[in-house]
Amino acid sequence: METLKIIKIGGNIIDNPILLDEFLSDFSKLDSPKILVHGGGKLASELSLKMGIAPNLINGRRVTDTETLDIITMVYAGKINKQIVAKLQANQCNALGFSGADGNTIIAKKRPIADIDYGFVGDVTKVNIELIEMLLLNGVSPVFCAISHDKNGQLLNTNADTIATELAIALSTNFKVDLLYCFEKNGVLRNVEDEHSVISEINQQQYDNLKAEKVIHSGMLPKIDNCFYAVNNGVKKVCIGNSKMPFNSTEKCTTIQL
Amino acid sequence: METLKIIKIGGNIIDNPILLDEFLSDFSKLDSPKILVHGGGKLASELSLKMGIAPNLINGRRVTDTETLDIITMVYAGKINKQIVAKLQANQCNALGFSGADGNTIIAKKRPIADIDYGFVGDVTKVNIELIEMLLLNGVSPVFCAISHDKNGQLLNTNADTIATELAIALSTNFKVDLLYCFEKNGVLRNVEDEHSVISEINQQQYDNLKAEKVIHSGMLPKIDNCFYAVNNGVKKVCIGNSKMPFNSTEKCTTIQL
Repeated sequence: METLKIIKIGGNIIDNPILLDEFLSDFSKLDSPKILVHGGGKLASELSLKMGIAPNLINGRRVTDTETLDIITMVYAGKINKQIVAKLQANQCNALGFSGADGNTIIAKKRPIADIDYGFVGDVTKVNIELIEMLLLNGVSPVFCAISHDKNGQLLNTNADTIATELAIALSTNFKVDLLYCFEKNGVLRNVEDEHSVISEINQQQYDNLKAEKVIHSGMLPKIDNCFYAVNNGVKKVCIGNSKMPFNSTEKCTTIQL
Repeated sequence: METLKIIKIGGNIIDNPILLDEFLSDFSKLDSPKILVHGGGKLASELSLKMGIAPNLINGRRVTDTETLDIITMVYAGKINKQIVAKLQANQCNALGFSGADGNTIIAKKRPIADIDYGFVGDVTKVNIELIEMLLLNGVSPVFCAISHDKNGQLLNTNADTIATELAIALSTNFKVDLLYCFEKNGVLRNVEDEHSVISEINQQQYDNLKAEKVIHSGMLPKIDNCFYAVNNGVKKVCIGNSKMPFNSTEKCTTIQL
């Protein structure tokens, strides 16, 4: 099977034009089939504030009412996605932007209301790979923003890490998938103050220990849970590292092991 | 050759949720390969005002500075495009949203500064049909917003009528193209006050006469010039009418003749 690289970039890259340009130039040079998944960075909150809508975050998660969904759709699927696509095209990478509604690629279900109503937030239920696969085999690189749909006309805000994981799992049936998460650190750190303390490999037993020791906690937990979900469901390789990691094999990073 | 319908909808449909839903339902039922091209309606100006940026129009045309381009990209490629795509998917139409940067489909050149600097406005120089054609043959319906790119990383605001015309001409090499413009009237009217005064056919000679008589003037001129440009460059059929016209052969409309 051919290798497919799925790379997710977070806010620290989106919000930094120099880092983003470097990343997109490197991404364009990758020979293998590739997919880019991007989050939203600070732009959505900035636009909310400009429009006089206070961002509503509960436990660090954005509550997505109708106005917020509009803003997210404008910023993620509009401004960020199209600027990335245009820059990749300038780098001779034939990029094509997607939300999950486009080509019916990512279907989700609105999250049921439990204690908190997160609004128009979706949990992925199905990924349709036929179109994505056809594009990849024709040299096109899909660029996904963090929006899905419910197939009944409703767009839904969906975590970008989740989008990347679900794409990776679904495409593992036909590709050997490398799932690479780029974020603001060099990997999972034993000491969050020390960029040199990257833990190079984590398996499930080690993860349980690191959680018990409270070395890994808070925001890293859903990130790493996502990674284990991927390796446990057919994704060949899952790494967490900085924005150079996907292009430089000597760059330190954390590999999540079966 | 197979028939391809390219339908352009304007602000009167975009801005009217009931009309838009009806249109998208009708569009979804079309059997033939089809492309939708949409303008922006009033939303871009509304968002500008909310953000405290006064829309700058010269002779009815929007001057596109950096902030305005951002707004257009958010509204056209983000909110409007994705809402249309999600609604088409709900109607079982496998829609896929495009700007001209996506798949490098529509390349344009920033308009040179003459008397007026219109800013980031692009005139189309090339349409790449391979990807569009592959998608059409696989049952996917591209949905284009009115944004192109210069292949050097710059997005450009481009008239939606022009986008539709240029797609129609380029795709005429491989399809029998019907280019259908939907707007707020039933067609080109002999008397603008009378919706029943639709001129059913206009050829070049008649157009010249209608211009001389001042029956056709101002905003209709570039619209009809675009239509003649299309029929003179291989597009099989060009009609101007209301939002029911593409789906109902008994609906009145104006056909532009060679």
